[in-house]
Amino acid sequence: MAYEANTFQNLIGHAKEYGYIFQSSEIYDGLSAVYDYGQNGAQLKKNIRDAWWKTMTQLNDNIVGIDAAIFMHPTTWKASGHVDSFSDPMIDNKDSNKRYRVDHLIEAHAEKLKAEGETQKADALIAQMDRLLAADDLAGVKQLIIDNNMKCSVSSTCNWTDVRQFNLMFSTELGSVTDEASTIYLRPETAQGIFVNFLNVQKTGRMKIPFGIAQTGKAFRNEIVARQFIFRMREFEQMEMQFFIRPGSQKEWYEHWKTERLKWHKEIMGFPTDRLQYHDHVKLAHYADAAVDIEFEFPFGFKELEGIHSRTDYDLGRHQEFSKKKQQYFDTEINQNYVPYVIETSVGLDRLVLATLANAYAEEKWTKEDGSEDSRVVLKIPANLAPTKLAVLPLTKKDGLPDLARELMNECRPAFNCFYEEKDTIGKRYRRMDAVGTPFCVTIDHQTKEDGTVTIRYRDTMTQERIHLNEVKAKVLAAITK
Amino acid sequence: MAYEANTFQNLIGHAKEYGYIFQSSEIYDGLSAVYDYGQNGAQLKKNIRDAWWKTMTQLNDNIVGIDAAIFMHPTTWKASGHVDSFSDPMIDNKDSNKRYRVDHLIEAHAEKLKAEGETQKADALIAQMDRLLAADDLAGVKQLIIDNNMKCSVSSTCNWTDVRQFNLMFSTELGSVTDEASTIYLRPETAQGIFVNFLNVQKTGRMKIPFGIAQTGKAFRNEIVARQFIFRMREFEQMEMQFFIRPGSQKEWYEHWKTERLKWHKEIMGFPTDRLQYHDHVKLAHYADAAVDIEFEFPFGFKELEGIHSRTDYDLGRHQEFSKKKQQYFDTEINQNYVPYVIETSVGLDRLVLATLANAYAEEKWTKEDGSEDSRVVLKIPANLAPTKLAVLPLTKKDGLPDLARELMNECRPAFNCFYEEKDTIGKRYRRMDAVGTPFCVTIDHQTKEDGTVTIRYRDTMTQERIHLNEVKAKVLAAITK
Repeated sequence: MAYEANTFQNLIGHAKEYGYIFQSSEIYDGLSAVYDYGQNGAQLKKNIRDAWWKTMTQLNDNIVGIDAAIFMHPTTWKASGHVDSFSDPMIDNKDSNKRYRVDHLIEAHAEKLKAEGETQKADALIAQMDRLLAADDLAGVKQLIIDNNMKCSVSSTCNWTDVRQFNLMFSTELGSVTDEASTIYLRPETAQGIFVNFLNVQKTGRMKIPFGIAQTGKAFRNEIVARQFIFRMREFEQMEMQFFIRPGSQKEWYEHWKTERLKWHKEIMGFPTDRLQYHDHVKLAHYADAAVDIEFEFPFGFKELEGIHSRTDYDLGRHQEFSKKKQQYFDTEINQNYVPYVIETSVGLDRLVLATLANAYAEEKWTKEDGSEDSRVVLKIPANLAPTKLAVLPLTKKDGLPDLARELMNECRPAFNCFYEEKDTIGKRYRRMDAVGTPFCVTIDHQTKEDGTVTIRYRDTMTQERIHLNEVKAKVLAAITK
Repeated sequence: MAYEANTFQNLIGHAKEYGYIFQSSEIYDGLSAVYDYGQNGAQLKKNIRDAWWKTMTQLNDNIVGIDAAIFMHPTTWKASGHVDSFSDPMIDNKDSNKRYRVDHLIEAHAEKLKAEGETQKADALIAQMDRLLAADDLAGVKQLIIDNNMKCSVSSTCNWTDVRQFNLMFSTELGSVTDEASTIYLRPETAQGIFVNFLNVQKTGRMKIPFGIAQTGKAFRNEIVARQFIFRMREFEQMEMQFFIRPGSQKEWYEHWKTERLKWHKEIMGFPTDRLQYHDHVKLAHYADAAVDIEFEFPFGFKELEGIHSRTDYDLGRHQEFSKKKQQYFDTEINQNYVPYVIETSVGLDRLVLATLANAYAEEKWTKEDGSEDSRVVLKIPANLAPTKLAVLPLTKKDGLPDLARELMNECRPAFNCFYEEKDTIGKRYRRMDAVGTPFCVTIDHQTKEDGTVTIRYRDTMTQERIHLNEVKAKVLAAITK
């Protein structure tokens, strides 16, 4: 399902204008690749997080949630492999001091070749780069850059340093006593907080395999190129679940979670089938024996939303090796001790927010009965996820209509988020609720005083009907409960 | 209300044993002053956070929530004063390289004097230290240490460096390009994320003063002495609300929030009146014109749970000064532009978890009808906050009882957290649910098959009654809805 040409830029503006997403520290001209969620964005993000948490933990007997700290013992990241290999190869131009990720430098050169009609040469270049990077041949990569006479965009020279690996983890110093201070990292993923707590949870929760541990929380990556709004940020939020299983059962559970997670994106997130696809990993990470992305069609193309990974016993095995503490489970059904295998589901919460906004955003134009043109911008966010569920709008500020509206507010507000507004024409108020994405508006008018009925107006269809005041709460509740 | 002598130590053990709180990275021998929340702790913490969020945002017309990033522009912390003055004075012993917070060094010396019967001398020493620190006279503090011949506990020498200020903010480097990299801080409080977004929220949300902005999230402080379990951690979670008001109305709103917040701790958190008290600040921070703590009686005494601060226009004024962007509001009621005043409410989420556990923990002993002794450990967590609301327990694994139990699980689980258990005697299962803090247990037995009734057992009183299966859900819902 294609997007309109300007959807992404318009959406970014809309997200700011209606309190969804602001640039971080905007009054100080912002901080690169960091964003703040405004009053509507924060609630949307919370609703999505809560929906995931409910699906994962509340509705599953054998999955529990934890909340591990961002700070972890530094050996965690040696065991996980992040200290040694969570890095991008970089090169500096000696004249300009500008630093490049080598793959971006080479890809830009290939694009230039293509633009000059040299498609074959460009493809060969990319293929060669891939070979060299896969072989970790950094000297070879540098030679490739020199042989192809790639120049710095600032200095226009070929005066390059060696290619070096740049680690993507943020580090800081913990503790104040100099000789005790230690370098720690901001976690680049939440998963390791689950692995190091595997035995704590299994034992104190008397969990039997197969079982899962779920977690939501911040992760940090010092991305060289962070872009596409909140799609790739340096500070972001993950929702991960590690499912611990008997070795040998990984194919079955991998398929199970692959299916379940896609279903969730359709049923709970409300994404249409044609904006979702699987993308199997061809090159597998060294620890994985199967991996697939669930991709969503963003305005900038199909991109990863969630990964499902069959991680074998790699993580627990590494922690066993580095901590010298057995990370094993005694399986009473088969009378065996083993290091469990793991199927991981890992979804980006910020990406889900962006996907929801992109999917919901619509600029609509139509001809009215009198022949004039009308239009609106609307966020058709599914009712279960929308920040505000119901707007209560007294037609005028007098004649006791605000009092009736307040009574309805008081009835509904403990159950879901409501919004009260008595200023401006009803038409203007409807348009603002469309732009914010509020699925239901109720107008209290003079007839309400007579017969207790109100006009309920539906965001997506703009249709209206007359119902009784005492039907409103149940109607909204039914629509938002999934 | 006094605690038993060993309550705190027993509680820490209990919190670990029942999946509430684990030491962070325990398999790597832990990380100082950092903790992870286990399967029950994570849910308790989430329930408290959600309760606060609902009270603050959903139930108030004029308070909205945001979710600002942990990373902020570094100038934020210059404007807030944290770069210059969020620090502790420290001194190093040159022989041992051991570093001390000077107040702790001097206080320890005063304790020694007291133990030797020199109470007057000890009091004079503390008074002198307070005077010198208040005057920022670090050389004077050093002289005090030397004059009193205070020795390092490691080297036993008086060979001291000068006293220096040690900033409590964690720093890290953002960005990869050397000449673009900048030192940023992990926020030491969430409040500044609200202040820098004041105008964004006010304008996009069309907010009228008085209004508030609420936020929950992680904050980080490199505490020299972090202790008392999760009471003072280096990584912790705050729940803050900044209420923006017309200058001159601060006394009225300060009293309002002082009252409202205490009420919340009683009504929603369920803390007894005699475990709560106000503690007025005598020394006010330079930006405050009134400040009070709401203190809770922990097993280690009355300590701060929440602060209510009348912050004047200090914060917005400073951001206006440092950003060169007007942080003003045009008040249409009085036709005036002004920098709003602020009343802040700031509560520690981890402290609320600890207070809840401490308040709920009970070791009970009694004599049974047959004359024998019985006992239990129970967490009397209020039903609205308990991690699991209902345990469903088939008396036996056969005769179709598990099927009936599963039907009840399926009915209740979409509405609240349920737990299913079919192993062990009912008595043992009840005890485990007591220890975890589950307020309701329902036992399915053979009579259930005949007449559809079950035994519901109440955690706090251990009383039981017979009710119909179809009354269970409503009964639990009524008890957990606040």
